[in-house]
Amino acid sequence: MSSDPLVIFTPSGKRGRFPVGTPVLTAARQLGVDLDSVCGGRGICSKCQITPSYGEFSKHGVTVAPDALSEWNSVEERYDTIRGLKKGRRLGCQATVQSDIVIDVPAESQVHKQVVRKRAEARDIVMNPSTRLYYVEVAEPDMHDPSGDLERLVDALRREWELPQLEADLGVLRTLQPALRKGEWKVTVAVHLGDDSYSPRIINIWPGYYEGAIYGLAIDLGSTTIAGHLCDLRTGEVVASSGIMNPQIRFGEDLMSRVSYGMMNPTGSDEMTAAVREGMNTLFVQIAQEADIDRTLIVDAVFVCNPVMHHLFLGIDAYELGQAPFALATSDSLSLRAVDLDLKLHPAARVYILPCIAGHVGADAAAVALSEAPGKSEDLMLVVDVGTNAEILLGNRQKVLACSSPTGPAFEGAQISSGQRAAPGAIEHVEIDPITKLPRFKVIGSDLWSDEAGFDAAIAQTGITGICGSGIIEVVAEMRMAGIVDAPGLIGSAEQTGSPNCFADGRTNSYLLFDGTENDGPKITVTNNDVRQIQMAKAALYSGARLLMDKFGVDHVDRVILAGAFGAHISPKHAMVLGMIPDVPLDKVTSAGNAAGTGARIALLNTDARREIEETVRQIHKIETAIEPCFQEHFVNASAMPNAVDPFEILRSIAPLPDVKFNEGSGQTRRRRKRPTSTS
Amino acid sequence: MSSDPLVIFTPSGKRGRFPVGTPVLTAARQLGVDLDSVCGGRGICSKCQITPSYGEFSKHGVTVAPDALSEWNSVEERYDTIRGLKKGRRLGCQATVQSDIVIDVPAESQVHKQVVRKRAEARDIVMNPSTRLYYVEVAEPDMHDPSGDLERLVDALRREWELPQLEADLGVLRTLQPALRKGEWKVTVAVHLGDDSYSPRIINIWPGYYEGAIYGLAIDLGSTTIAGHLCDLRTGEVVASSGIMNPQIRFGEDLMSRVSYGMMNPTGSDEMTAAVREGMNTLFVQIAQEADIDRTLIVDAVFVCNPVMHHLFLGIDAYELGQAPFALATSDSLSLRAVDLDLKLHPAARVYILPCIAGHVGADAAAVALSEAPGKSEDLMLVVDVGTNAEILLGNRQKVLACSSPTGPAFEGAQISSGQRAAPGAIEHVEIDPITKLPRFKVIGSDLWSDEAGFDAAIAQTGITGICGSGIIEVVAEMRMAGIVDAPGLIGSAEQTGSPNCFADGRTNSYLLFDGTENDGPKITVTNNDVRQIQMAKAALYSGARLLMDKFGVDHVDRVILAGAFGAHISPKHAMVLGMIPDVPLDKVTSAGNAAGTGARIALLNTDARREIEETVRQIHKIETAIEPCFQEHFVNASAMPNAVDPFEILRSIAPLPDVKFNEGSGQTRRRRKRPTSTS
Repeated sequence: MSSDPLVIFTPSGKRGRFPVGTPVLTAARQLGVDLDSVCGGRGICSKCQITPSYGEFSKHGVTVAPDALSEWNSVEERYDTIRGLKKGRRLGCQATVQSDIVIDVPAESQVHKQVVRKRAEARDIVMNPSTRLYYVEVAEPDMHDPSGDLERLVDALRREWELPQLEADLGVLRTLQPALRKGEWKVTVAVHLGDDSYSPRIINIWPGYYEGAIYGLAIDLGSTTIAGHLCDLRTGEVVASSGIMNPQIRFGEDLMSRVSYGMMNPTGSDEMTAAVREGMNTLFVQIAQEADIDRTLIVDAVFVCNPVMHHLFLGIDAYELGQAPFALATSDSLSLRAVDLDLKLHPAARVYILPCIAGHVGADAAAVALSEAPGKSEDLMLVVDVGTNAEILLGNRQKVLACSSPTGPAFEGAQISSGQRAAPGAIEHVEIDPITKLPRFKVIGSDLWSDEAGFDAAIAQTGITGICGSGIIEVVAEMRMAGIVDAPGLIGSAEQTGSPNCFADGRTNSYLLFDGTENDGPKITVTNNDVRQIQMAKAALYSGARLLMDKFGVDHVDRVILAGAFGAHISPKHAMVLGMIPDVPLDKVTSAGNAAGTGARIALLNTDARREIEETVRQIHKIETAIEPCFQEHFVNASAMPNAVDPFEILRSIAPLPDVKFNEGSGQTRRRRKRPTSTS
Repeated sequence: MSSDPLVIFTPSGKRGRFPVGTPVLTAARQLGVDLDSVCGGRGICSKCQITPSYGEFSKHGVTVAPDALSEWNSVEERYDTIRGLKKGRRLGCQATVQSDIVIDVPAESQVHKQVVRKRAEARDIVMNPSTRLYYVEVAEPDMHDPSGDLERLVDALRREWELPQLEADLGVLRTLQPALRKGEWKVTVAVHLGDDSYSPRIINIWPGYYEGAIYGLAIDLGSTTIAGHLCDLRTGEVVASSGIMNPQIRFGEDLMSRVSYGMMNPTGSDEMTAAVREGMNTLFVQIAQEADIDRTLIVDAVFVCNPVMHHLFLGIDAYELGQAPFALATSDSLSLRAVDLDLKLHPAARVYILPCIAGHVGADAAAVALSEAPGKSEDLMLVVDVGTNAEILLGNRQKVLACSSPTGPAFEGAQISSGQRAAPGAIEHVEIDPITKLPRFKVIGSDLWSDEAGFDAAIAQTGITGICGSGIIEVVAEMRMAGIVDAPGLIGSAEQTGSPNCFADGRTNSYLLFDGTENDGPKITVTNNDVRQIQMAKAALYSGARLLMDKFGVDHVDRVILAGAFGAHISPKHAMVLGMIPDVPLDKVTSAGNAAGTGARIALLNTDARREIEETVRQIHKIETAIEPCFQEHFVNASAMPNAVDPFEILRSIAPLPDVKFNEGSGQTRRRRKRPTSTS
C-alpha cells in the first residue's frame, strides 16, 4: 500500500495514497475533498475540472513527473473539442493517478465554493444552497421484483449520491415515467435537501443530462420598493437584479397608514396581501425576462422585510403591530411553499422568511445582522439601517442588542419644504463657505459643483428640483458648522449670522440654498421647520443607539456601519455634525449598502446561514424603546446638534461647531421637543 | 412515602402511591395510564371520566373506603347539572386521592381506545389518529421579552402537553391573533402530529374550549364506485357512509378501456384525473351533509385503490400500467396535502395513500392485507378480493405472497346473457332439485323462494329482471351438482340430463331458469356461453391462488377469506363446486366484507398501522402471473369444474359432483381455453 502513488490536493492540503489507475474524482471523494460533480463521474458534466501541478514540491516533499496522470482519453478530447477545456485543466473523473501528484481544485470546481463579496471587511458567502442537481442512472423495471419507477430512482440516488430517502413532488410523479424513458433511464434531478417543515425531495426531473442552471431569488420586501436578486444556485452568481414599487403604496405611503387601512376596511388587509403578492409576481416576470430564463426554474426564494410587510405578505392582519404591546403573530423564521403565497415560480418552489427580532425589528434587521454579523465582531459595532424606521444593532462577540426607532420620513426628503426623493435634479451634496456663508451644491446627475464652469449646461436636462435626504443632512450640518443654525436648532437672521442668504420667514428665519425663480425655477430654502424635522429624525436615531449603549454599559462604540440604500449616500462627517450617530473617528464609519438584501442573498445561497441567523436572533437582546424611560431623556438631549450632553470630542477635533445662540426668548425649542409616536 | 395512599388503575393494573390530594388525572399521567384529557385538567372537557370502585379487593390487597376520593367539587357539580355525569363517574382532574383507591378507566376515557370490529375474528382498531385536539392557556405578549403569539402558543403546548416544536399552517397564522384574544389567551388547537413529509403542526385554532369533533375520511376508490366512511377522529365512530359512481365510467367501464382512453386522447389522462377528483368533492359534500358537519372539519383522508385508479387520481398517466412490465410510477405510500389533489376539505387536510404491492396489485390489496393481516396468522390463509380483477394474498407468519388475476367482469353479471348488477329484482340464490332438476330461486328484495307462497306478491314491485353475480355462481354450481352441466362445462340436452328445462340453443344447450314471457317479463336462461364466462373467471381466480400455493410450497390452505362487497354474497359451497377457491372445510370459508375499506379505516384511525402496512408490503413476495409459465397450466386445469387435476376431496364428501360427460366431439372446450389478456 505504501508504495501506491501519493495524491495531494490543494488548497485543502488533503492527501492520501491510491492505487495506480484511481480516477482523481474517486481519490477526492475518498479524502472528502470538495470537488464538484453532477454526472457522478461519467464525463458528462465537466464540473470536476482539476489542475495538475508538475515538478518539485519541497513543501509537500514530492516530485511530480510529467506523466503522473494518465494521458488524455477520448472523453476529455471530445469535451475539449466541443466545449474547450481551459489550458492545464483535466476532467477529474477521467484522469487517473499514475504516480505521485499534486492536484489543485479551482474555486469553480468546488461544491462549497465561495462567492466573494466586494467589500473588504465582509465575509465571503460559502455556497450551500437548498437545491442541487444530480445526474443518475436508474434500474429498469423488473416484473420479477416489481417496484415503482420513483423507488428505483430514489434508490439510485441513495446509492450513487448517498442521498437520504427522498420523496417526490407531485409534479415529478407526473413527468417521471416519460422522462426516464426518454432519457433511456438516465436523468438529471433537482433535489431539495429539505428544511424544517419539508422532507428532502425531488422537485424536478429532466431526461438525460440537464446542462442548465436552477435559480433562487433574494427579495428585499420594503414598504416602498421591492427589490429582487436572481442567483444561479450552482455558482452563486447574481444573474439579474430588478425592483418595483410596492403596490401597497396605494393603500398608504407609510406602514402606519397601511395598518390603519386594514383597520378601517373589512377587506383591507386581504387587499394589501393580494396587492403585494401580485407585485411580487410582476417582479418575478420582470427579473426572469431580464435574465432570459423560464420563471419555473426558480426553485427557492428568501424574503426579508419589516414586521408589517411580513404580516401583510403572509396574509395576516397587521392590526396588533399598530398598538402596544406590538405582538407579532409569529416571530420565528418560516419555511413555506411558494404556491401557498400565490407566488408563481417552480410549482415546488420553497420560500424562506428570516425571523423577526421583535414587533418593531423585523426580518430585514435580522438580515442585516446576518450580513454584518455584529455578534462575530471583535470590536463594538453599531449597525444602523436607516429608513423611515431605523433598525439599530449594537454588539460584539459578547452580546448583541437590537431596537428600532421611529425616525419618520424626513431622511427621505419627506416633510421637508423643498424635500424630494433621490432622483436626477435633487441637491445631494452641499457646502457652505465658512467666510461668505454662501452655499454651493451638487445635484444628482452631475459631478460638478454649482459654482464650477459647465454646471448650468450639465444640469440643463434635469434642472434643480429640490433636496434629497442626503442633501438635507449635509445642508443642515453645513449650516451648523458655518454658524447659521445654533445647537438647539434655531436659524439666525442675516444680521446674527452674517449670511446674506438668511431671511425672515414668518416667525422664524430660513436659509436660501438656490433661487431659480428668474428662470421660472423653484426657490429652494431650508426653513426652521425643516431643521426641526431633521432634528426629530436624527434624535430618534441617536437616542435608540444611545439606549443600546446604556444597556451594553458603554459610552462609545468602536465603529459604525450605515446600512440601507440611503445609508450608502450619507456623508459620515455631516451625520456626525448633526449628532445622528455616536462620536467615532470618521474612518470608522462605513456603508454596507443594502445589507438586508445581502443578508437575504446569504440565506439563499447557504442554508446553514439560516440556522445561524435563527440562533443569532434567539440570542439578540431586544430593547423596546417605547417602554424605556431613559429613551425620552436621550431623545431630548439628542435634539441638540450634535448633542446637549454627549461631548463628541472626536468630532470637535475635525469640525467647527460654533457656539452661537440665536434664541432670545424662553423655551421655543423646548416646546417642540416631543417624542414622535411609535410606528414600525 | 410508603404511607401515601395506593392508587390502582384498572384495566391496566398500573399502580403507585401518591400524596393525599393528588388529582386522579395527575396520578394516571405519572403512571402512564391511558386516560384522556383535552383541557389539561381544567375541568372543562370531561374526557377524563373515571369510575372509582369501593370495598374490599383481595385481588389487589386493598380495601377502598367510601371517602377514598375527595367529595364532589363545584366543577363536577356544574358539569353534572349541565351535561349529566353517568352514575358512579367522577372527573379525573377534579377528584383527588384521599386513601387507597381502585380506579377504573372506562373505554371511552382512553386516548388509545379500541374501536370494536363486528367480525369475531377481526382485530379491534386501537385509536391513534393523525390529528388531536388540545386545550391550552397561552402567555400574553410582553414588550420586555418580545416573541410571536405563535411562539408562545407552541411553548405552552410543549410545556403542558409535551408536544414537539410545532409549526403552524398559514391559515392558523391568519386566525391566531383574533382567536387568542377572543378566547382571552385560552384556545383549543388541532395538532397534526406529523408524517413522513410533514412536520408536526397546528392546523386549526378555536377561541376557548372547542367542544366539537374533527373528522377523517376512509375512501375506497374503486373503478366503478367510490365509497367513503366519515369517522370521528376522537372516538373512531363511523358517523356517515356514502358512495357515488366513479365519474370516470364515462371514459370506459373497465380499467383497460380507461388506460386506452388516456392513450388515444392527448388530454385524456388529465380529463380522467379531473373527473375523479370532482367526483371525490361531490362525495365529500354528500357525506358532510349526511353527517351534518362542516366539510372543513375533515382534516385527514386515507385512500385505497387499484394501481390504475391510483395513478389517475394522482394525475399520472396510467399508460405504463397497460403494458408489460407494468411499471408503477411510484409504489410506496404517499403522504400529501389534500389541496394538491384539488380536494376540498380542511385547507391543511392531509391525504395518505396506502402503498401499492405491484403493477397489478394495488393499494386496495395492501388495505386488505392490513385488515386481514395474513402475515399475523398462525394458519395458512388465502385472501381473495373478488372483483373485475382479483387480488389474491396467501400467507401466514412465515411469509405472505400476493398476485392479481384478471377475472373479468363475469362475476359482476357482465358478459352473462341474463346478467345484471346486484339490484332489486336480480336472482341471487338458486337451488336445483336433484330429482326433478327444476330450479327455484330468490331475488334481491325478498326472502322467499320462488316456489313459496306469497313470492309473486313479494316481488310484484321489482319483478324478476336478471341474474346477479352471486346468482350466476349458484346456478352454474347447482347445474353441476344436478348433472346438468359436466365437468368440462358443457350443458347437456333435456334427454341427457333428464331436465325439462334444458333446451337446444343454437349449437349448444341452455338451461331455463325463469320464463316470464307470459307476463311480458324476461326469459332468464343460462347459456353454454354463460357457463364458459364463469369458467374463465373462476379459472383465473383459482389459478392465481394455485400459483401462490406452488410458490409457498403447499397443496392446501387452512382457510379462505372472501373480501370485497361481492365476496360477501358468494356462497362458499357453490364457489367451491365451481372450483373458484381451493378445497377447504366450508366453515373455513368466511367473508370479510369490504376489507379494503376497513383497511383504509384502520390506517385512518391508527397512524402506526400506516407504518405497519408499509413494512408488510415491503415484505410481501409479489408474483406476476403474466410471466409464470405454470399459471397457464393451472388455468387450463382450473377450467374444469371443480378442477381437472386437483382432487377437491373435502368438497366431494359434502356435495354431489356427478361424473356426467356431454361432449361427444373432440376439443370444443379446448378451443375456448385461452388466457384472458392481462389487465389490472
